[in-house]
Amino acid sequence: MSESPYPMISPDEAFRLVTTSVQTLAPVRVPLDEALGHVLATEVRAGENVPPFRSSAMDGYAVIAADTTEEREVLGEQDAGHVSAFQVRPGTAVRIMTGAALPEGADAVIPVEYAREAHGRVRFIKTFPVGANVRPVGQDLALGDLLLSPGLVLGAAEIGLLATVGQTEVTVYPRPRVAIMATGDELVPVEQTPGPGQIRDSNSHALAAFVRQVGGVPIMLGIVRDDEEALRQAILEGLERADMIVSSGGVSMGRRDLIKPILERMGIIHFGRLAQKPGKPTTFATLRGKPFFGLPGFPVSSLVSAELYVRPALRVMAGFTTLRRPEITVRLLHDIRHEPDRTEFQRAVVTWKDGQALARNTGDQVSGRLLSLVGANALLRLPQGIGDLRAGDEVSALLINAPEV
Amino acid sequence: MSESPYPMISPDEAFRLVTTSVQTLAPVRVPLDEALGHVLATEVRAGENVPPFRSSAMDGYAVIAADTTEEREVLGEQDAGHVSAFQVRPGTAVRIMTGAALPEGADAVIPVEYAREAHGRVRFIKTFPVGANVRPVGQDLALGDLLLSPGLVLGAAEIGLLATVGQTEVTVYPRPRVAIMATGDELVPVEQTPGPGQIRDSNSHALAAFVRQVGGVPIMLGIVRDDEEALRQAILEGLERADMIVSSGGVSMGRRDLIKPILERMGIIHFGRLAQKPGKPTTFATLRGKPFFGLPGFPVSSLVSAELYVRPALRVMAGFTTLRRPEITVRLLHDIRHEPDRTEFQRAVVTWKDGQALARNTGDQVSGRLLSLVGANALLRLPQGIGDLRAGDEVSALLINAPEV
Repeated sequence: MSESPYPMISPDEAFRLVTTSVQTLAPVRVPLDEALGHVLATEVRAGENVPPFRSSAMDGYAVIAADTTEEREVLGEQDAGHVSAFQVRPGTAVRIMTGAALPEGADAVIPVEYAREAHGRVRFIKTFPVGANVRPVGQDLALGDLLLSPGLVLGAAEIGLLATVGQTEVTVYPRPRVAIMATGDELVPVEQTPGPGQIRDSNSHALAAFVRQVGGVPIMLGIVRDDEEALRQAILEGLERADMIVSSGGVSMGRRDLIKPILERMGIIHFGRLAQKPGKPTTFATLRGKPFFGLPGFPVSSLVSAELYVRPALRVMAGFTTLRRPEITVRLLHDIRHEPDRTEFQRAVVTWKDGQALARNTGDQVSGRLLSLVGANALLRLPQGIGDLRAGDEVSALLINAPEV
Repeated sequence: MSESPYPMISPDEAFRLVTTSVQTLAPVRVPLDEALGHVLATEVRAGENVPPFRSSAMDGYAVIAADTTEEREVLGEQDAGHVSAFQVRPGTAVRIMTGAALPEGADAVIPVEYAREAHGRVRFIKTFPVGANVRPVGQDLALGDLLLSPGLVLGAAEIGLLATVGQTEVTVYPRPRVAIMATGDELVPVEQTPGPGQIRDSNSHALAAFVRQVGGVPIMLGIVRDDEEALRQAILEGLERADMIVSSGGVSMGRRDLIKPILERMGIIHFGRLAQKPGKPTTFATLRGKPFFGLPGFPVSSLVSAELYVRPALRVMAGFTTLRRPEITVRLLHDIRHEPDRTEFQRAVVTWKDGQALARNTGDQVSGRLLSLVGANALLRLPQGIGDLRAGDEVSALLINAPEV
C-alpha cells in the first residue's frame, strides 16, 4: 500500500481529457420510426415540392376569382385524393375539400361559410381575390430547400418532415452501446439476500438507467469477482460487445483494487485520480480505441462521476455538440461545510423565486447515501481553495435535470 | 355544408376538460430495469439497514482508536465480501479494504496514507478518533426509512436505491398505449410515391415520435380511408389495443369529414371546435371510457394540438402531477401579425440575454409548414382579443423543450 502514482487532476482538466479523447461513432442508417432522439449526420433537402400540386386550404368552392356571375353551376365535388377532370369556367364552381387538388381553371377557393348552395347552384356572399385559400405548389417545401442540417436532434416535427419527403430511413449517429460491470467480492445480485459482509449490486442498475437516460444502450456484464483474470475477461467481452465500458469499484488503492493495473497493460490511462469529492479515484482509459470509465464503488460517487464524465463522452459519441449541462449561479439557503482541498459536487435542489435561483442541498452528502441524489436537480460546484460557505453565498450549479437536446 | 354545431371553446377550457376527463391508469409491476421514467405508484421503505454491518469507508487499517502502541502487529487483511474471524486488541491492527466489514474490537480505520507497514508490523503517523472512517450500520438507509414517495419519477438514483433494498420489481403507472391513425383518401404511406392529388402520411410518424417523447407507446393503425365503416372498424381496433386513440384529419366541416358523426354515435364528444390557431377543429371525445383525440390533418396543427392536449392527457394517465409546460414571459424581437379573433400559438425560439427571455418566431406560420416547428423550443401564446404585436412587446410562451419530469 502506498500513495497513488497518478497525478491529481482537476475536474475541468478531466472533462477536457474525456471530450478530446473520445470520437463520434460512424453514422448509420436507421428506419424513420427509430430515429427519435438521434443526431442527424447528413443534411436533408427536399427532393420534391410539397404540396406537389395546387390544393385547397379550406372546405369550400373552387372558383375563378374574377367571375361575377351571381349564381354559378356546381360542376361536382373534388375530394382530397381523388382527381376529377373538372374544368372551371366563368359561371361554374366545384365543391372542394381541404387538401384536394384545385381543378383546372380555378384560381381561388371560397370557404363554405360564405356559400349558399341549392339545387346544384351556388351563390357567394363575399368575394375573394386570386389565390385566396389556395396552397401554391411548394408552399411548405420547395424542391431543393434545405430541410434539416447535420447535428440537429430529431424530434417529432423533424420526423414528420422526413416522412413528408419520403425518407423511410435516415442517416444518424448511433446510440452508443455501453458495457456495464460491477466489481467486488462483496457484491451479490439484487434478487439475492446479502450474507455477512455482503451488499447488493445497485450500481449496475443505476448506471444502466443513467446510460439509457443519456441515450445510450446498456449491456449488462454483471458482477465480476476481484480476480485479475476474471476482470480481464470481462473487459475483453465489453470491448467485443460495446462502444464503451463503464465499471464501478476496484479503483481505489487497496490490494483488491485491480482495475488500474489491468488497464495499464491493456491500454492508456488518461487519468486515475481527481481533485474532487465525491469521485476521487475515477479512472479514464482508452483500450483498443474504446473509452473505459472506472468509476468508484460508492453509489453516489459512481453516479456523480457518470454525470460529469460518462455523459459528455456519450454525447460526443452520439454526435451532440452541446456537451455541458447548463451551469448557473445560485444563492445558498443555508450554511455548507466544505473542505478547501478539492472541488466538491453537492447534490441540491434549485428553486426559483423572483428570478433568483436558490439552492438547498439534499442533506447528508456521504458517498454511499443514494438518498442524497433523490429529487436533486442540480450539483453545486464548491470550488477548491475556498472553505465553508454561508447562507446567502453564491456558488455555481450544474442543472442535471435539463432536457437531453 | 353548414356552420359547425360545436360551441367554440377556449384553449384553457379545453385543457380543463381534457385533464378532468381522463383517468390515471391502474398501477402495474414492472422489472426494475424497465422502470426508468415511470412514476412510482406506492411508497418504498427500507426493509433493512444499509450498510447492514459496520464497514470501512477507506482503504487502511482497522484499529482501536485509543490504542497508543507505537508499532502494532498486523493480524491479516479484511477484504470486502470476505468475513474473517479477526479480533483487534490493543497492539494489533487489521489491514482493511473499503467496504469490508469492520473486524471485532476495532472502532476506527486509519487511512493507508498515514500508515507505514513493514515485516508484519505497522506504525501510524496520525491518530484518529473513535468512529473515524467507519460507516455505521444503517448510515445510508435505516430500517423503516421512507425511501421514495408515490408520485416520484424514477431516475437513475431512484433505481439504484430500489436495487439497494432488493426491489427487483416496482409498482408504477404504466406507459399509456396510444393507437395512432391517419385519415384521408389523399394519403399514401411514406415509402410510396404520391400520385396526382396525393400526399404522404407524415402525421402518423410525427405523432408516434411525439407519443414516445411524452413516455407513451405508439401503436400504428396506419392510413384509414374516408369511409364510415373503415373508420369505425379502425376506432374499434384502437379501443381494443390501446388506452387512447389519436387520429389526424377528418375533423373539419367537409362532406368527407366523418370522424365527428362517428364519435357522436360511439361515445361523448367533449369539444369539437377551439378558439385557437392552429388547431381549430381539434376534437376530444370519450369512447368506452377511453380518450379519443381527433387532431386536424395539417401537420403543424396536429402537433401543436398534440402538445397542448394529448400531452397533458398522457401525463395524467401515466401518473404525473405536473401537467403543464413551464410558461414564462418573453419579449418579442420583431413585429408579429396576429388576428384578435382567437388565441394563436406561434412556434418560436426563445433565447436568454442578461436574464431576459427573448423570442423570435420561426418564420412563416402557415399550418402545413412543419419547418416552422424545426428547432422551435417554445410556443408563443398570442391572446384572443388583441391584434398585431410589436418588437419589444411582452407575451407568454410555453417552453416545449423542457424536460419530461
